[in-house]
Parts: sequence; structure tokens; C-alpha cells
Amino acid sequence: MMKRSTVAAVAVLAAAVSLPAAAQFQKPEDAVKYRQSGMFVMADHFGRIGAMVNGRAPYDAAAAVKNAETVAVLATLPFAGFVEGTASTEKGKSSAAVWSKRADFDAGAKKMQDEVAKLVAAAKTNNLDTLKAAFGEVGKACKGCHDNFRNQ
Amino acid sequence: MMKRSTVAAVAVLAAAVSLPAAAQFQKPEDAVKYRQSGMFVMADHFGRIGAMVNGRAPYDAAAAVKNAETVAVLATLPFAGFVEGTASTEKGKSSAAVWSKRADFDAGAKKMQDEVAKLVAAAKTNNLDTLKAAFGEVGKACKGCHDNFRNQ
Repeated sequence: MMKRSTVAAVAVLAAAVSLPAAAQFQKPEDAVKYRQSGMFVMADHFGRIGAMVNGRAPYDAAAAVKNAETVAVLATLPFAGFVEGTASTEKGKSSAAVWSKRADFDAGAKKMQDEVAKLVAAAKTNNLDTLKAAFGEVGKACKGCHDNFRNQ
Repeated sequence: MMKRSTVAAVAVLAAAVSLPAAAQFQKPEDAVKYRQSGMFVMADHFGRIGAMVNGRAPYDAAAAVKNAETVAVLATLPFAGFVEGTASTEKGKSSAAVWSKRADFDAGAKKMQDEVAKLVAAAKTNNLDTLKAAFGEVGKACKGCHDNFRNQ
């Protein structure tokens, strides 16, 4: 009886350990929609800071902090959606390079997350020039990956 | 000179105060895509907790907390996207009731956010039954609005 429980426990553990990232999505299309949705919402909140630093919206220090913090949460999410077999040849979509150069892609994601952490800190200084500089660095990190891993 | 500055300051303030929610979106379609994207990502993370409480995935207390906290951030976002003039008659999309009964809709959103806050607390108890109960209450709050404000 104890042995059977142990076997069951090991089976559960093995399933948990070997659970691929894809397992959280029922279909590959869900993973694609998940990452695209997350990126869209993240871009929206990043863009609200962009409007402030580019003078298209009044500078609102509290809103900048809130938006930067929202970006920081969203920045951690989409990468789970880059599951195998979801490359595209369509313009603006993820290219096969995401998977053939996955370490570079992951490093790019990490770089973006690091710059976003700095953006949150910059927003909290309540200094528009500091915010603007940090915004630019995040933008570069975004562009770096988009240039290399998105079909042009 | 001082008077002109005062006038300018008042103008800026008035612009900020009267800035409609729509102003953060360039086009109504962007607002619709924003709210749909946010809801999709939120549903995904809520669904990961659902898989645990319904026995389709192993119970992982830390992951449950992380997912609940992610839902809590996402739960605050989509409602800014319900801008005027974006009702639909299509099945599964937002009906005109969102705008004709806006106070009820906003109360429904608040109810969901309150239940999500309880979900976070429940996840932190590390008790699957407690999590399951809180999950059910959030689900009811979701369904309440979907039944009343989404085309059937």
C-alpha cells in the first residue's frame, strides 16, 4: 500500500517536473494569442509613458510610476507563450530565429526586463529627464529583439 | 505675465481633468483590443489556478500565489478600454448594456476585483480547499458580468 502511494507520488512529481511550458496552453494558437495579448497591453502602458516623455501628454509622475510598474509585471509574462512550433513567416510576427537562437532571445528578454526595472526606479525619481532616459533604454531593448526575432 | 501663467496653468489642469478615458487610445479599435487582450491574459492566469483546483494540474502553492497576484494586477486594467462607441452586437462581445447600465457594470468590475483580492489571500493560506472556494467566487463574479454585459 505504501509502495503504491510512493509510485503515485513519484508519477505526479515526474509529471510536474517534465511539464513543458506548452502544457499551460491547450493549443499552440492559445500560446500565440497569450504572448501577443501580453505584448499589446505592455506596449500600451509603455506608450502612455512615451506620450509623457515625448510631450504628447502632460507629465503625471504618479501615473508614470503606475504605468512603469504595470509594464514590469507584464514584462515577465509573454515569454512562456513562445512555445515550440509557433514560428511564423508573416511580417511583424515571431520568426524561426526565436527558437534557433533561443539563448539570444532569452537574453534579449532579460535585458528588457532589467531596463524595465530601471524604468520603475526612474519613474520614482519624479524627474522627467531621468524618466525620458530610462524610457529610451527600454525602447532600445524592445527594438533589439524586434529587429532580430520578428519578421521584417 | 503672472496672469498669463495662471491662465496657462488652469488650461493644463482643465485638459488633464477633462481628459476622457478614450484619450489614452489613438483609435476606438485600440481600446477594444486593449480590453480584450487584458481579459485574455487575465483569464489565462485565472485558468491556471482553475486547473489546480479542478485537479487537471498538480497543486503548486507558490504558482497559485503568483498566478493570483498576476490576476490581481490584470483585473484593474481592462475597464479603461470600455470607451464610448465600442458596443457590439456580435456574440461574445460587449453589448450596449455596458454603457446604458454603466453603474451596474462598474459595480460588477469592482465585485470581481474584490473577489480577486480574496483569491490572493486564499492562495497564500496554502490550503487547496480555501483556494477552491475563492476561485469559485471569482468565477461567479466573472460570470455575473458576462451574463449581463456580453452578447449571448
